[in-house]
Amino acid sequence: MRKAQSIADEVRRRIVELKWREGERIPDEADLAVEFSAARATVNKALQVLADEGLLDRRRRAGTRVVVNPVRKATFSIPIVREQVEDAGLIYSHRVVAQRLSPIPGHIAVRLGLPEGERLVHLRAVHYADGKPYQLEDRWINPHVVPGLEHAGFRDLNANEWLVRNAPYLRAEFSFSAENADRRDARLLQTRQGQALLILHRTTWNDLGPITTVRVVFQPGHSFGADEGRDQAAKI
Amino acid sequence: MRKAQSIADEVRRRIVELKWREGERIPDEADLAVEFSAARATVNKALQVLADEGLLDRRRRAGTRVVVNPVRKATFSIPIVREQVEDAGLIYSHRVVAQRLSPIPGHIAVRLGLPEGERLVHLRAVHYADGKPYQLEDRWINPHVVPGLEHAGFRDLNANEWLVRNAPYLRAEFSFSAENADRRDARLLQTRQGQALLILHRTTWNDLGPITTVRVVFQPGHSFGADEGRDQAAKI
Repeated sequence: MRKAQSIADEVRRRIVELKWREGERIPDEADLAVEFSAARATVNKALQVLADEGLLDRRRRAGTRVVVNPVRKATFSIPIVREQVEDAGLIYSHRVVAQRLSPIPGHIAVRLGLPEGERLVHLRAVHYADGKPYQLEDRWINPHVVPGLEHAGFRDLNANEWLVRNAPYLRAEFSFSAENADRRDARLLQTRQGQALLILHRTTWNDLGPITTVRVVFQPGHSFGADEGRDQAAKI
Repeated sequence: MRKAQSIADEVRRRIVELKWREGERIPDEADLAVEFSAARATVNKALQVLADEGLLDRRRRAGTRVVVNPVRKATFSIPIVREQVEDAGLIYSHRVVAQRLSPIPGHIAVRLGLPEGERLVHLRAVHYADGKPYQLEDRWINPHVVPGLEHAGFRDLNANEWLVRNAPYLRAEFSFSAENADRRDARLLQTRQGQALLILHRTTWNDLGPITTVRVVFQPGHSFGADEGRDQAAKI
């Protein structure tokens, strides 16, 4: 693999330095094998490394072309908030502000693809780190697709952790936005009204339908990050 | 594949309905082949579908286990802002507010891993959609790793598009946060001071070093979304 790696490094350098440019067809394997005094199989291995990185598009007949702004793969998983707090060396606690079966309003119905007024579990809760508000969640959970939900209280085991452990999802949708804190957000997060807050909406589905949709409000100053190209999964 | 697909559906259903739970070892291929009256190769294909979805962890000796909150793969690429605006049916325009070679301040030096005071190209620009501010960028570009930068003006072709087309990157780092608009943000975005704004910091590297770091400020109300499990790449 050492030889293949050094060929891959050289080809990558040519792409980065624009010797070979977006959309251009690069020399074929046989020519590269001659240039690098390597076996064709070794060249093939090297080009596959770059194809996996997204920098080359290999097609059987059309040859191999350079892709400058490739579609990259990033990995992510849904975080357990308690673990995030504890991993930061802080003490986790949790408070359920409200929990009841309620008819869903229009914008939640649209997001879930369910009829307006259908009754789901509505939950509002605060996660704390060392006794200070860490994040808020305003969540709707669909009891029709989550077995065992009727026995879950969420006062001991919070809904985030319960769902991650008990409700496998097949599809997830996320969006980030920013909002000025309203009176309620400000009170629960112990901040001032108008404070800029990072908001995450996350919705998950299994094969029976929508599982849950949650509006997560992060504490002021929180930033959500991801590092593509390292072996770290983002926690969204 | 039809038979394999229906076996995959049934196994997925058992995981979703918690018949087979997190960490549990599922029956081996031979037993499943008997249960489903299928060839072992077909069962193998079905289990591979679920492994690709992240719901099963297959190991040669340890057998196949259920993963309830798997690490998922999402795809993304860096957007060309002009295309995003035009895809929305709006007219794109662009204004460079400032562009000069400047010494980098401490927080940029830390982010890029370069010495404080090193001189990079500092650029501030506004992207417009139908003449209204769409997003701001405050960007540092490293001329030492981007060939051809000295000839790029960014008044005709904006820096975002120039870089996407001319500066292939190998690693990218992102973070989202929320900030209250300061006087300058408010003026350039034609909004009020204090307005909550969604901020994206994005930094890219090639094999020579950091290419660019940019602070993108979205127009008020903008939300950034991704839909995992569909074949759509997020534009970050």
